This record gives sequence, structure tokens and C-alpha cells, in this order.
Amino acid sequence: MTKDMTTLKTAIIERFGTPCAVIDLDLVARNIVKAQERCDAVGLANRPHIKTHKSPMLANLQIKAGALGITCQKLGEAEVMANAGITDIIIATNLLGAARSGRLAALQSHLPLKVCADNTVSLSAYSKAADQAGRPMDVLIECDTGQKRAGVETPQQALALARIIRDDPYLNFAGLLFYPSLDGWPRTQLFFDNTAAGLSDLGLSAKIVSTGGTPNFAHIGSLKGATEHRAGTCIFNDRMMIKAGVATLEDCAFQVFTSVVSRSGPERGILDAGSKTLTSDSGGLDGFGMILEHPKARIHKFAEEHGFLDLSKCDHKPAIGDIVRVIPNHVCVAVNMVDQLVAVRRGEIVDVIPVAARGMLV
Amino acid sequence: MTKDMTTLKTAIIERFGTPCAVIDLDLVARNIVKAQERCDAVGLANRPHIKTHKSPMLANLQIKAGALGITCQKLGEAEVMANAGITDIIIATNLLGAARSGRLAALQSHLPLKVCADNTVSLSAYSKAADQAGRPMDVLIECDTGQKRAGVETPQQALALARIIRDDPYLNFAGLLFYPSLDGWPRTQLFFDNTAAGLSDLGLSAKIVSTGGTPNFAHIGSLKGATEHRAGTCIFNDRMMIKAGVATLEDCAFQVFTSVVSRSGPERGILDAGSKTLTSDSGGLDGFGMILEHPKARIHKFAEEHGFLDLSKCDHKPAIGDIVRVIPNHVCVAVNMVDQLVAVRRGEIVDVIPVAARGMLV
Repeated sequence: MTKDMTTLKTAIIERFGTPCAVIDLDLVARNIVKAQERCDAVGLANRPHIKTHKSPMLANLQIKAGALGITCQKLGEAEVMANAGITDIIIATNLLGAARSGRLAALQSHLPLKVCADNTVSLSAYSKAADQAGRPMDVLIECDTGQKRAGVETPQQALALARIIRDDPYLNFAGLLFYPSLDGWPRTQLFFDNTAAGLSDLGLSAKIVSTGGTPNFAHIGSLKGATEHRAGTCIFNDRMMIKAGVATLEDCAFQVFTSVVSRSGPERGILDAGSKTLTSDSGGLDGFGMILEHPKARIHKFAEEHGFLDLSKCDHKPAIGDIVRVIPNHVCVAVNMVDQLVAVRRGEIVDVIPVAARGMLV
Repeated sequence: MTKDMTTLKTAIIERFGTPCAVIDLDLVARNIVKAQERCDAVGLANRPHIKTHKSPMLANLQIKAGALGITCQKLGEAEVMANAGITDIIIATNLLGAARSGRLAALQSHLPLKVCADNTVSLSAYSKAADQAGRPMDVLIECDTGQKRAGVETPQQALALARIIRDDPYLNFAGLLFYPSLDGWPRTQLFFDNTAAGLSDLGLSAKIVSTGGTPNFAHIGSLKGATEHRAGTCIFNDRMMIKAGVATLEDCAFQVFTSVVSRSGPERGILDAGSKTLTSDSGGLDGFGMILEHPKARIHKFAEEHGFLDLSKCDHKPAIGDIVRVIPNHVCVAVNMVDQLVAVRRGEIVDVIPVAARGMLV
């Protein structure tokens, strides 16, 4: 460990305690530029998904670097981003709770949102909200091409919704939203081509054709007709993105600084970060995060505030009081646990960034 | 569904949107009384663990019902509870991050804390914090009898720490903290008996001998020499507690109200509650929560804001726009996702309770 890192760890624990969520602003800036370049290289607009960082400050850095606008997953996230002056926002889910609470109409009256739907119940809710807001709402149709999450399953279903949008005075047809599975790009092309032909018959065209996902950077641009890409995780990266082959350990800008607080057995230890810090989302990987100082240590289990370490494979084992840095498996859910990110640059603490849209469930 | 429940669901979604975390105050009150009675019945003091609710208001209800004091897992939780006037607090972990940040000393200067240790590094940190605070600190020795989490593994180790505490001018030996595994009670008795004999030789006695865990209500009182019990989950209960046999569905006081937002396939659906609402903590159970209206539906997967429903076994399948209630697998981590709990009583919304110690990582 370099002297600089020892100094930083001491500064972190003395100022904030542990566990502490830390981002490296130089790495964040580099990751923002890389994502922009990946979109630029294939002629797509960049619409980063802010669910990863939930910070208007970081969203504005993305826009400054060239992003056309942003993607949100919840209306509450969009509210926070709109309050910070961001105006071009897609909310990439069916919004029913937010619509019925009146919050969708309230935000739409402040700025024109782009929302998504895969069903007529959502369309009715959007129409009503747009009517209340006194401003028509842009709607993208969410199309499923393999994730089996939300999204219409056929071009025919997409076209049926497009016709309803066209005929609704409060709705504008804005385009199509895809989140292809990694092997689903040829299927997505077929879906898009068939839908585009039908849209033309309806007198419509998709101004926005959006693809999504950081792992899908591997295929970005391979959908002919796409206009933009939504990626979230790439601003920080994590073990899942390393596994997916779209990032290296050196690209991981988010770390949890955590203390070893117990070493009751020779082959085991306990971190002060558990499921209430790093979450139980394993992302399908072995262990719950990678310890930079002890890559052979395995975080094999969590209690709420305890991370259980299996140290049997470590040549050098951590001592009680050691501060170690964990790269989480899934950074988006880890960020969502904390109210603030401590920002460092070249080993110095330079800022504390609120995770302003944390816990925006609705 | 009763008319009352339809009315409540409408009130919840129109006022708060979905997903929304809801507690039933009558059930909470009943659960608080039950836990107190379980302790009273075996002559143990009740020291509820507030990590489950993180609410000073609910902690004060527990104290009003007879609890001697409370248990916290993080210093930040203790700070919130102390600010609300609670004075008898055990913090049941090795505190290193909080000690080095100065926050332990700061709180200790306001009120005498009871802290826990299983190692000499923690003891040194506590001694230094107590010195800074100008008030000696009560220390319990955490003893492991099977969880393989934190805690000394032998009576000899416990006694070695007890001697150091005895000889430290800033530390008071306060007792022993156990969290027996379900089958570990006979082992815990042996550990306690051997330790108690040794303590006597040191001129010490354990004023507090604490056992823990809601599932351990099944064995409460079976450790001769115990003085108190710490249980957290029992204030709300969840699927894990039902599985453990210490609660029924009717005892579950916490529910997430969530909307069905997509039904793209005949056998599947999507909830607007995903891993950022209910968390990926399965608690070792099948599926991620139980839907009261559709007990045969299986929440088989989460995305961050999507709950994936397998409806193949449901006779009656939910429609888009339906509001359903989910009992989580593990309520403690679900509560920790939200900033507030909507409190209802006999079907009426009566309060909004801040989860004041949410996200207290340190």
C-alpha cells in the first residue's frame, strides 16, 4: 500500500468513519468521457441512466461531456434531476403509482417528460396526467426482445399502442425503447424493422429509438435505426461489468472503505460492511465484492452490518483495524444505500456529493 | 378484498404512490406487548434491537411497554435514539470506524454507553474514546457460540479481555453478549458457566448477560444466568419469522404496497417494487416476498425497480394497475430502504413515521 493510500484511509476514517462510500472523481470523469466516445463512435446520442449515481451534479457532468439528456427509472429521480435544471428526461418504466399520486401531472406541468408504456392502462394514466398538466406527453413504447421484463412482445402489440397514442389528444408518439438481452440484438433488429414498417402505415415515425445497458456497449450501434443509447453503470463500473468484459478493475470508480472489526478465527474475519451497506445483490457472482488489498479473501456471507470473510486462501491476512476497499458486485444498488458519496481526487478528499435521488421509490 | 382494503389501497396510492412501505400500528402494538410478555414470562429484561425499525417513536413505544433499554447495531443508530431521550443503550458490535471518527467519544460524553468487544483493538479504541469523553465506558464481551460471526470463541479469551477491561481505568466490565445459534443453547450454557467461574476469580461478575434474536424466542430463558434478551424483527415480523415458527402471517405488521405495472405474458407480470425496495436478501427462502392477494404468485427475480412475477400457479391472476401487498422475506433490510413508514390503524392512514436512523452506516 502506498503512503498516499494510507493517508487517504486515515483521512476517510477520521472524518467519516467506516463503512464509507468513496468515488474517485478522475476515474468518474474518464468513465463519462469513455461512454460518450462509445456513443459518438457509432453516431448515437448518449442518454445516461442516472439510477446508478442518483446525483444531479454527476448528471450535469455527463451532459457537459456531450450527453443529450438523461434516463430515469422513477418519477422521484426525474423530479430531483428536473429541480437541478435538467430538461430532457426519459422515464423508462410504466409509471402507475406516480401517475395516481398526482406527481406525474405535477412534474409534466413543469417540463415535457418522455415516458414509457407497454400497455393501455399506462397510456390512460399518462393521458389523464397530461390533460391535468395542460401539456401533451411524449410516450415511447417499451419493447421486449428477450429480457422478459416489461415491454410488448410483438410488433403488432407495439403498433396497437402506437395507434392509441396517435389518436389521443394528450399523447405524442415519441419512439421505441429497447433493452436487448446480450444475445438479443438480431431479434431486436427484426422487431424494429417490422414495427417501423407498420408505424409508417400509421403515419408515424420513431424519432427516438433507444437501446440500453452498459454490458450492451459490446453491441452498441448494431441496431440499424437506433438513435440513442442508455447506459448507467459505466460511470462507476463494478465486478459485474468486469465480468461482462466492458470494464477493468482500473475503471472501477466506486469503492466502499470498510474496517476489519473482528478476527475470531484464524481463517475468518468480519467487516463492518454488511447487507445494509453492500446489499445482498450478488449479481450472480461468487462472493459479495472484491477486496482490493486481499483479492483472495472471499466475502461469503452478510449479516445486516457484518461482512463475513473467508481468509483461508489469503497468504497475507488482514488484521483487526485494517481499512480495506471493496469493489461491489453491483454498484447501482450499493450507491442507493448511502446518502452521500465522498469524492476523492489524486488521494485527497475534495467533495461530499449527496445521493440526492436515493430512496426515490415512486 | 374488503371494501375497507380497497379504500385503503386507493388512499395509499393517491397520497404516496407505489411502492409504499406501510405498517399497521395495532399489530405493531400487539407485537410489542407479545415480545415484552415473552421476556417477562421467563424473568428476563427486554432490550429490543431497534435495527428493525430505526424509529425513536417506535423505540419509545417499546420502552413504554416495559423494555429496559434498547440495542443498536451502529453508533449512528444510537445517536438518533439518544437524541430522542433514550439513555440505556447497548451497541452490539465492535465499533472501530465510529471510534476513529471521534463520534464514539462525542456520544459517550453525552451519555454512558454500553459497547461490545471481542478483541483488544476494540478495547483500546473504547478506552481512548472514554478518556476523551471524560467518562468510563461499560463494555460487554461478545462471545461466539456457533454463529461464527464476531465474538471470542473460548471462555479463556473472554477472561483475558475481562482482565484487560478490569485493569483499564476508562473501562468497566459490564457483562457478556451472546447470540446463540438455534441449536447452540447448551453450548452457550457451558461457555457461560466456565466464563462465570473465571470472572469470579478475577473479582468480576457479569451484571448483564444478554441473549439475542427473534427466532431464539423459541429458547428464551433456557440460558441459566441470562439477564436480558435482545430481539428486533418481532416488532414487525416477516416471512423468515413465519418460517422460523415464531410468528404467523397475522403477526406481520409491515407490508409493501406495490402496483402491478406490466403483464406482457399470460404467465408473468411486473411489480413496481424491485431490489431497491424489497432488497435481494432472500433470507434463504423461495421467492422474494409473499403477495397477500396472490399467495401462489412467485416473485422469482428482481431488477432494481422491477419485481418479476411468475403467475403460472395462480388461479386468479392480477391485472395491470392492481395494488398488491407484499410481506418481505426480511423486514429489517426492507425498512432500511425507505425514509418513512406510512402508519395505518383499522384501515385508516394515521401517521407517517420517519425511519430516522435509516442508512446509519457508521
